[in-house]
Amino acid sequence: MNTFGHLFRITTWGESHGGAVGVVVDGCPPQLVLDIAAIQFELNRRKPGQSHLTTPRQEGDAIEILSGVFEGKTLGTPISMLVWNKNARPSDYKHLKDVYRPSHADFTYQQKYGIRNWQGGGRASARETIGRVAGGAIAKQLLREACQTETLAYVKQIHTLTAEVDTDTVTLEQIEASPVRCPNPNVSPKMAERIDTARRERDSLGGVIEGVARNVPIGLGEPIFDKLKADLAKAMMSLPATMGFQIGSGFGGTTMTGSEHNDAFYNDDSRIRTRTNNSGGTQGGISNGENIVFQVAFKPTATIGKAQETVDIHGNAVELAASGRHDPCVLVRAPAIVEAMTALVLADHLLRQRAKYTALP
Amino acid sequence: MNTFGHLFRITTWGESHGGAVGVVVDGCPPQLVLDIAAIQFELNRRKPGQSHLTTPRQEGDAIEILSGVFEGKTLGTPISMLVWNKNARPSDYKHLKDVYRPSHADFTYQQKYGIRNWQGGGRASARETIGRVAGGAIAKQLLREACQTETLAYVKQIHTLTAEVDTDTVTLEQIEASPVRCPNPNVSPKMAERIDTARRERDSLGGVIEGVARNVPIGLGEPIFDKLKADLAKAMMSLPATMGFQIGSGFGGTTMTGSEHNDAFYNDDSRIRTRTNNSGGTQGGISNGENIVFQVAFKPTATIGKAQETVDIHGNAVELAASGRHDPCVLVRAPAIVEAMTALVLADHLLRQRAKYTALP
Amino acid sequence: MNTFGHLFRITTWGESHGGAVGVVVDGCPPQLVLDIAAIQFELNRRKPGQSHLTTPRQEGDAIEILSGVFEGKTLGTPISMLVWNKNARPSDYKHLKDVYRPSHADFTYQQKYGIRNWQGGGRASARETIGRVAGGAIAKQLLREACQTETLAYVKQIHTLTAEVDTDTVTLEQIEASPVRCPNPNVSPKMAERIDTARRERDSLGGVIEGVARNVPIGLGEPIFDKLKADLAKAMMSLPATMGFQIGSGFGGTTMTGSEHNDAFYNDDSRIRTRTNNSGGTQGGISNGENIVFQVAFKPTATIGKAQETVDIHGNAVELAASGRHDPCVLVRAPAIVEAMTALVLADHLLRQRAKYTALP
Amino acid sequence: MNTFGHLFRITTWGESHGGAVGVVVDGCPPQLVLDIAAIQFELNRRKPGQSHLTTPRQEGDAIEILSGVFEGKTLGTPISMLVWNKNARPSDYKHLKDVYRPSHADFTYQQKYGIRNWQGGGRASARETIGRVAGGAIAKQLLREACQTETLAYVKQIHTLTAEVDTDTVTLEQIEASPVRCPNPNVSPKMAERIDTARRERDSLGGVIEGVARNVPIGLGEPIFDKLKADLAKAMMSLPATMGFQIGSGFGGTTMTGSEHNDAFYNDDSRIRTRTNNSGGTQGGISNGENIVFQVAFKPTATIGKAQETVDIHGNAVELAASGRHDPCVLVRAPAIVEAMTALVLADHLLRQRAKYTALP
Repeated sequence: MNTFGHLFRITTWGESHGGAVGVVVDGCPPQLVLDIAAIQFELNRRKPGQSHLTTPRQEGDAIEILSGVFEGKTLGTPISMLVWNKNARPSDYKHLKDVYRPSHADFTYQQKYGIRNWQGGGRASARETIGRVAGGAIAKQLLREACQTETLAYVKQIHTLTAEVDTDTVTLEQIEASPVRCPNPNVSPKMAERIDTARRERDSLGGVIEGVARNVPIGLGEPIFDKLKADLAKAMMSLPATMGFQIGSGFGGTTMTGSEHNDAFYNDDSRIRTRTNNSGGTQGGISNGENIVFQVAFKPTATIGKAQETVDIHGNAVELAASGRHDPCVLVRAPAIVEAMTALVLADHLLRQRAKYTALP
Repeated sequence: MNTFGHLFRITTWGESHGGAVGVVVDGCPPQLVLDIAAIQFELNRRKPGQSHLTTPRQEGDAIEILSGVFEGKTLGTPISMLVWNKNARPSDYKHLKDVYRPSHADFTYQQKYGIRNWQGGGRASARETIGRVAGGAIAKQLLREACQTETLAYVKQIHTLTAEVDTDTVTLEQIEASPVRCPNPNVSPKMAERIDTARRERDSLGGVIEGVARNVPIGLGEPIFDKLKADLAKAMMSLPATMGFQIGSGFGGTTMTGSEHNDAFYNDDSRIRTRTNNSGGTQGGISNGENIVFQVAFKPTATIGKAQETVDIHGNAVELAASGRHDPCVLVRAPAIVEAMTALVLADHLLRQRAKYTALP
Repeated sequence: MNTFGHLFRITTWGESHGGAVGVVVDGCPPQLVLDIAAIQFELNRRKPGQSHLTTPRQEGDAIEILSGVFEGKTLGTPISMLVWNKNARPSDYKHLKDVYRPSHADFTYQQKYGIRNWQGGGRASARETIGRVAGGAIAKQLLREACQTETLAYVKQIHTLTAEVDTDTVTLEQIEASPVRCPNPNVSPKMAERIDTARRERDSLGGVIEGVARNVPIGLGEPIFDKLKADLAKAMMSLPATMGFQIGSGFGGTTMTGSEHNDAFYNDDSRIRTRTNNSGGTQGGISNGENIVFQVAFKPTATIGKAQETVDIHGNAVELAASGRHDPCVLVRAPAIVEAMTALVLADHLLRQRAKYTALP
Repeated sequence: MNTFGHLFRITTWGESHGGAVGVVVDGCPPQLVLDIAAIQFELNRRKPGQSHLTTPRQEGDAIEILSGVFEGKTLGTPISMLVWNKNARPSDYKHLKDVYRPSHADFTYQQKYGIRNWQGGGRASARETIGRVAGGAIAKQLLREACQTETLAYVKQIHTLTAEVDTDTVTLEQIEASPVRCPNPNVSPKMAERIDTARRERDSLGGVIEGVARNVPIGLGEPIFDKLKADLAKAMMSLPATMGFQIGSGFGGTTMTGSEHNDAFYNDDSRIRTRTNNSGGTQGGISNGENIVFQVAFKPTATIGKAQETVDIHGNAVELAASGRHDPCVLVRAPAIVEAMTALVLADHLLRQRAKYTALP
C-alpha cells in the first residue's frame, strides 16, 4: 500500500507527470504550531536544479496545504499537501515509451500492472519523495516540540571518497554549506569534482548517506517485528535507488569479537550510558538514549547518457542513450529525504510509546 | 505489534521461560496439504544443542498444531502452533535479575516497560524466533506449491573468513552438510575452527548470512513503501543481533559507476532477463524474475564468558561474566530463520499480487 | 485513522471550510477504464442544493483527478481526487465559534483535540462524505466490471412514513425519479410533503435508508471479525447521523422462532439458493449469493431553526437558533453515500477473496 | 483477518473440535496486575451447561495463560491464552458432514474455502468467542484500573418479551441473579418460561442484548471511520447470530423530529452534560461522557430439533433434524461476550487517545 506508519502515518500519491504529487499526513497530534516555511525549506533541499551537480530541471515545488490546519495550528485531522507538476515535459520521454531502461522500474511495472505511465518514471519517479519530505517535515516539528529530538543526514561517501564526520557535533549548517551536502570541508570539494567528472562523462555515481538522530527518548521501538532498526531499515530501503542499510557497527562489526563489540554500560552522573555505541543507539530494537547512527547505500543513478544495451517491450534488442535531464549523483539531494524518513519512524514510535507505556494511574 | 505481514501474517508470542512460545499463522490459503515433518525439520535446524558449535542447551522444540488443519489440509483459518518451554532453568539467570547485560535488551526493556522477565532474555530471547520458523515453514510450503519458489540461506562469512558460494546452484543439502552451514567445503572447516577457538576463549563471533530466493514470480512487491527490498530489510532487521542488510550489489555497489552497475536487459529465448544482477532480483521494489540475493550482518553474540564492565538496575558499577549456556556464534543456527523470514515476505506478496493484479475479466 | 479498507482502501481528508476536501483511493486494480462522468454523477446525487428539500447551499462539487489514471485507465497506483471548497462562507458560522450545538460534534471535538475548526462543522461536516462517494464510485465501476455486482440504496422511511420496495427489481432510475429518492411512487410525494412541513416549522426529520447489493459473488467476507455484516455495519455507522444498522430480518427477526426464521436451502436448477432471505445475503459472515439487504437509521438533522437550550465553551447557558443553510432531512442525499460505502466494502472483500481463496495451482 | 483492534488487539484461533481454542492479546500495557480468576469468571458466564436454559454440553473451559505475565503482572508482551477442547464429540456431527444446515455457515464456508471442518461448526462455532471473552476480560481490567470504566450487558428482550432496565443503576449482581441474565425480576421468570417452552418444542428464540458502558472518559473514538459507534457496531456484528445494532435512540429515533431528538447541553456543577441521551453517549463518533447505551439483535438459534428442508453438498434435497446438543436461546450466554467486545473497543480507543491527544509538552 502507499501508506507508511501506524499512528503517525503518511499516504503518498502522484506520478511525475500527472497533475500533482502529494501526501496525506494522518495522526499528527492537534495544537502543533505548524511552520510552513520549514516544510518548504525541506522541499527546497530535495528539489532538482539546485546547482550544476543536480539535474538542470527547474521545479518550483511550492507546497500547498489543503486541510488539517486552522489558524496556524494542526487540528488533529488529516493534513493534505500537494505540489503541482509544472515543469513536466512528457515529450522528453516519448522515445522511452516502448523501451525498458536498464535498472529502472519500467520492466517490472509493466509486468506487474500491464500498464505504466512511461513519462518520467511515473510513480517510480523520485518525485514521489516530495510527499515523504513534506510529511517528514511535520514529523520533525512534532519531534522537536515533544522531545527536542533532531534528525540529520549527510553525504558520507561518494564513489570511493569517504568523509569522517563527528555524529555528536555535526550541524545542519555544516551540511547545507557544502554543495554536495558533505559536512567535511576537506572531502566535500573532491566529491564535487568527482561528480562533475561523472556528469561530463555522461555517467553517474553512487555513495552512502549517514543518518543520525540525537536526543531520542529512551524506550522508542517495539520489540519483535517493529524494532526501531527494522522500521528504519524498511523506511530507507523503501527509497528509490537504495541497496543497503546498516546501523551502529553494521557490516564492519561482523569482524569484531563479542568482547570488542559489546557496549559497556556506565553511570554518567545518574544517567546510564554506554562507553561505545556499536549498537547504534538501539538494543533489543528499542532506543537506549545514545545517538542513533546508520548508513544507507545508494546505487549510481540508473539514468546515464552513455549508450546502453537493452530491449523494447516487444523483446527486440535496442540501444538506449538518455537525452533527458537527470542527476549524475542523487546523493546530493538525498539528505532531506533520509531525514524525513527518520523523523517519520521516530514520530510514529513516539506516539506508540505514549499510548501503551504510560504508567497506569 | 507482534504481527508481521499483511495478507499472509504471523503473530508470535512467548517468553523464553514462560510456559511456551508460539505463533498464529493467519491468511494461509485453504486446501494446502501440510507437511508437519517439514515444519519440525526447520525447527530442528534452528534449535540449540546441535553440536559443540552451538549452545549445549538441549531443547526438544517439538511443534504442536492446535488449529487450522483438518484431515491433513489447511482450512483457511488461523493455524496456531506452539512449543513448550521444557528445559527452562530460571535459576541459571537469577544472578542477572538486577544486572543490565551489555549489548542486551535488559536495560531498554526495563526503561520501556518498567518491568521485564529477566529469565533468559524473556521476550527478547532468540527463542522467540521459533514462531517465525514454524510460520515460515508453512510459507515455504505455500510458495513451493503455488510457484515452485525456493528460499535458501547459508553462512557467507564468519568473523574475517568469507566463502564464495554460487547462488544459482547452491543446495539445501550442501548447506546442511556443513556443521557451520557454510556450503563452501573449503571454508567451512576453517569457520568451525574459528568458532571453536572463540568458544574456548569465552568470546563470540559475528558474520554474514546470505539469502537467495529462486524462481520468484515476476511482479511481487508493491512500489513505494512495501517494496520487496524494503519488506525483506524489515524482516531481517527485526531479527535479534542483525546490524545490516544489503541486496544485490549493496554497499559494494556504491563504488561503481552507473555504466558499470546497470543491469542490461536481453531477450533470452523470449524471456526478458538481465546480463548482470546488481539489482539483486528487484527493480522499482518489484521482483524481476532474477534470483533475489541479499546479505544480513549479525553482530557477535552479546553473551560472552569474559568479564565485562556494566551497571546494575540501581546504577552501581558491577563486573559480569556469563555462566549460562550460550552460543559462541549464532550464525550457525540463523539460516533457518533467515529462510523463514524470506518465505514469509514472499508469501505475503504473492497473495497481495493475486488480489490486485489479476487481469479483470 | 482516516483510512477505510484493507486492500481496496480510501483515505479521506478535508474540513468543510478548509481549502478542499478529497480522497486517496489505494489498491484499485490497474487497467480499469475509468468513467469520470460516473464519478461526477454520484457526487451530484450527494450534493446540496438539488431541490427545496435539501439545503439551498449551491456547491459545484466538481471532481478533479490528480493521479493514478493514464490515458483513461487506472494505473494501479493511488488515485487522488479533490473538490475545492468554493461556496464557503465562514462568516455564517461566526456566531457558533463559542457555542456547543446540541447533538453536534462541537463539544466532543473540543474536548478530544483542544481545538476545532468551528466553521461549518469542520471535519465533522457531512462534506467529508464527498471523498467517500468519489472513492465508492470507483469501487462501483470495479464491481461492475469484475462481477456485475450492483449496489443500490433508497429512502425506505421518513419520519413515520414507510415505503414498500421490491429489492429484486428496484432500479436506479426509479430512485432518481423521486425527489426524495424513495422509489415507491405512492409514498414518495407524502414524504416530500412531510419534509417540506418540517422545513417550514424550522425542524428536521430522520428516517431509514435501505441498501441492497445484487449479484454478489458467493464467498465474500471473512469469518470472525471481518464478517461482511460487520464491515457493512462499521461502514454505515461511520457515517454522520447514523444510529442503527440491521441486516436481513434485523431487529424484527428477534420475535420469530428458529423454525420460522431459518432460510431453507433448495436446489434451483443447480444453483443452491434459500427460499427466504432472513439472513440478508450472508451466513457466517460470508455472502451466500442472495441479495444483501440492510437498513440504516438516520437521526433527524441536528441543525434546526428552532430555539434550543445549550451552553457555550465557558459553560454558560445560552439559547441557540440556527441561521445557517441546512437540510431539513439528510436522507434525500444519503443514498449515494450508502451505496458508496457498500461498494467500498464489497470491492475490498472481492480483492481479499481473490488473494487467498483462489485454488492453488 | 482474525485480528481485532489497532493498539489493544486480539487474535483468536481455533475450531470447535480442533485441539484447542485461544487468543493472543497484543498491546496490553505493562504492569497491570492481572486477576486470572476474573478471566475465568467471564468464561464461566459464557460457557454452556450453566442451566437447563443452555445447551447440556459440559465444558470446563479452564483458561491457561502461556505468556505475557510475570509475577502476577503483565509484561507488555503478548498474552497467549487457550482452552482445550475436552468434551468434543465429533461423532455427534458425522451425520452433518455432507449436509448444509439452514442459516448456518456450512454452505458459505464450503463455497469460500472448498473445505470445512464439519465437526460442530468448526471455526464458525460460538466456541470461537472464548478467545474474545478472555481477551475482553483483560480489557475490562485495564479499563477499571485506568479510568474506572465499567461495561455491562444483559438480556433486554427474549422473543416478544421486553424488560425495562435502568442503565444508570443496573449491576452485575442483578444480571447474574437472573438465570436468563435479565436484571428485571418481573420479566426474567417469564423469559425463562418462554425459553423452556421453545426448548420443549424443539425450537429456538432470539432477542436483544442491551449494553451499557459507564464512566467512559470524554474523547474516545476517532472521527470519520473509527467512530466509537462504528467500532462498536463492527464488534457486535462480528458476533455469530447478530442481525442488528443500534445506539442511543436507534431505529426508534427515526420517528422523532430534530427538536425532540437533540440532546440539550447544560452545566451540571462545572461538568457539561446533556439532559437527554438520545445520542447514546457519543457525538461525532466521540464519547461525550454520558453512558454509552446500545442494543444488539440476535436471531433465534439456527440449530433446532424440528425437521427442516435443506440440501446436501451434492445439491440433493434432504430433511434435517438436529440431534446434537444445542441452546434454545443463545442470549442467556451472550452478555459476557457483548461486554467483552465493548471493553475491547474502549480499551483500544483509550490507548489511541493517549497516543495522540495528550497535550504536547
